[in-house]
Amino acid sequence: MSQEGGLYEKEPPIPPNEYVRVKHTVLREFISKIFVAAGLSSNDSWVVADVLVTADLMGISSHGVQRVRRYIDGLLHCCVNPKPKIRVVRDFGATALIDADNGLGHVAGVKAVEVAIEKAKRYGVSLVLVKNSHHYGIAGYYSLRAVEKGFIGISATNSEKLVAYVNTTTRSLGTNPIAVGIPRKTPPPILFDAATSIVPVGKIEVYAKMGRKVPEGWVIDFEGRMLSGDAAEILSEIRAGRASILPLGGLGEEFGGHKGSGLAFIIDVISGVLSGAAWGLHVRYTVDTAPANVGHSFAVIDIDAFIPKEEFYERIESYIDELKSLKKHPSADRIWIPGEKAWNTMMTRLQIGIPVHIKVCEELNLIAKNLGINEKLCDLNKS
Amino acid sequence: MSQEGGLYEKEPPIPPNEYVRVKHTVLREFISKIFVAAGLSSNDSWVVADVLVTADLMGISSHGVQRVRRYIDGLLHCCVNPKPKIRVVRDFGATALIDADNGLGHVAGVKAVEVAIEKAKRYGVSLVLVKNSHHYGIAGYYSLRAVEKGFIGISATNSEKLVAYVNTTTRSLGTNPIAVGIPRKTPPPILFDAATSIVPVGKIEVYAKMGRKVPEGWVIDFEGRMLSGDAAEILSEIRAGRASILPLGGLGEEFGGHKGSGLAFIIDVISGVLSGAAWGLHVRYTVDTAPANVGHSFAVIDIDAFIPKEEFYERIESYIDELKSLKKHPSADRIWIPGEKAWNTMMTRLQIGIPVHIKVCEELNLIAKNLGINEKLCDLNKS
Repeated sequence: MSQEGGLYEKEPPIPPNEYVRVKHTVLREFISKIFVAAGLSSNDSWVVADVLVTADLMGISSHGVQRVRRYIDGLLHCCVNPKPKIRVVRDFGATALIDADNGLGHVAGVKAVEVAIEKAKRYGVSLVLVKNSHHYGIAGYYSLRAVEKGFIGISATNSEKLVAYVNTTTRSLGTNPIAVGIPRKTPPPILFDAATSIVPVGKIEVYAKMGRKVPEGWVIDFEGRMLSGDAAEILSEIRAGRASILPLGGLGEEFGGHKGSGLAFIIDVISGVLSGAAWGLHVRYTVDTAPANVGHSFAVIDIDAFIPKEEFYERIESYIDELKSLKKHPSADRIWIPGEKAWNTMMTRLQIGIPVHIKVCEELNLIAKNLGINEKLCDLNKS
Repeated sequence: MSQEGGLYEKEPPIPPNEYVRVKHTVLREFISKIFVAAGLSSNDSWVVADVLVTADLMGISSHGVQRVRRYIDGLLHCCVNPKPKIRVVRDFGATALIDADNGLGHVAGVKAVEVAIEKAKRYGVSLVLVKNSHHYGIAGYYSLRAVEKGFIGISATNSEKLVAYVNTTTRSLGTNPIAVGIPRKTPPPILFDAATSIVPVGKIEVYAKMGRKVPEGWVIDFEGRMLSGDAAEILSEIRAGRASILPLGGLGEEFGGHKGSGLAFIIDVISGVLSGAAWGLHVRYTVDTAPANVGHSFAVIDIDAFIPKEEFYERIESYIDELKSLKKHPSADRIWIPGEKAWNTMMTRLQIGIPVHIKVCEELNLIAKNLGINEKLCDLNKS
């Protein structure tokens, strides 16, 4: 957390000298070109680039442009379809089922939330599921799409296994995040966006970079022993496939591990089992020998179906004022509303640029070059 | 947890000699008569009694017949309406808003989930909100109502303040539970039913009875200090209004306290703010100087809108088989599916009866007597 002259970044670049600041429009343009060169339509490329750059703007760099490598590998090797025919395969009342045809999840996600918004206009609420998809980036992006049009937007997804179900030791669940976006009269909207694991891997990456120690209670090995201490070491155990992240609520049931893993399971049943996608052990990584078959869920609620929107806005403002007026815990920096940190980070980075790690920058330059793009994102020799 | 000759109780009566076993039909009949005597219709009385007895059957005694005192006090003093005119005040497509007219939440909840089921049949998904209600007992009861008819049922509610929002110390949120019920071809169904607090108060009550110590991480005082140790002492601090339960994820953000309190907040925004009910600080206890104005949410999903039901059932069985086959953590008793403990407890108690504490039994006898019922639930002099 950093705060200088009104600027705020929930995840400041550490160490600062390993980063270059890039304007978000420049970054999005560059990423978009990469995806066009990898075979996506210009529209789909823009969508993918916008989801990734939005994550970086919001300070969720684990889900930002550093993931381009993974998606491009999936497109070039196996099993992402660059030109998916995304189709509504079932349509019943306020619901729809979409087949993403193994394209990138971002493209299917945006399509699905648009269908969900149209259905919510007509029926007050809607539920749209997606199968045969891939990783869709930050769940919150899709909720925000609904919020921008004045709706409440809910988005959830399954993902490849990384989390231990309660009372077990190995990986069987994804970090299966859920995001809920709620509009306010003026920004920032409320944006709850959380993995159902105790932490996302991205947090351990940040700890590794900062040289911080992982506390006991985040990660176990396959024998069920707690792994704590050096974050870089623990990260390499996770990456080597020898450790599991614990669910929200931690190990066992004493602090609610059954709640966190229960939530992950429910999200998987709706996003994966009900949609016809893969679930649990069967959801694959983007680059594999067969398609990932990720499943997503999108629900949209029309506020006006329940209460006049102006009244809703007034009530939400009162609620937020009340939360902000509570007695702050002595160890806390301040009282935050869900999504406020990410929004403030976005406002800051729209102004001063997105910090891109020099290694990520070099990697993006190389990906572009290999795809025949005669352009560099950042010329590091000049800086 | 106890297991003898195939019998299982997730919350066994401790100490056993302070309890009498009562057949569930006898208990329900007796409770039903109490509510009739307090002015409810016989149908509404049966509903309330069934919700309470189901909680006891499932081993959630904190939400069982020991709560009769509270509801009767609300009916006799202030502010529960014994003969509410429950009305659908808004009806739009797949949504409805119900005014519970300050009646007990159980009655409005059953009505609301029935409306939600009918709408889901027609539109594939539905969302029904309730305002001007009171405490509705276990959230899972309403999900099970949908499950019995083959639907996925989601139920959530706000409740009187007891939980500290992340980075604060005092009480501003309810334990705001959410329940999701998912049908299987044969019972038990999946029933996830969890408070968004780190523990429900009921768990601290059980710890107090068992003489167990409360671990650090469940409760704080209003200065933000951890309260741990003697459960009876901590329980009395909570009851005296001098302590807050922490959200799922615990204190601060390191283990996800922002996630638990974020979930509680989102449930409150939908159940309370969107419905027109009270929220956060404004939700009252059942017995107070003004109505509680609790808000509930009910969503129902028609499985057939997405996938043929037989296929869904097969997929769910595979998923459950896979979870059950995972490597068990050495400290765990076994691998449980959400709702399985409660279901097994119910099967046991349908057979051997519900353990009712002698003090609860005496209290129920007294309540009945004061309402002119010439009958005793259990004659303790005889036992």
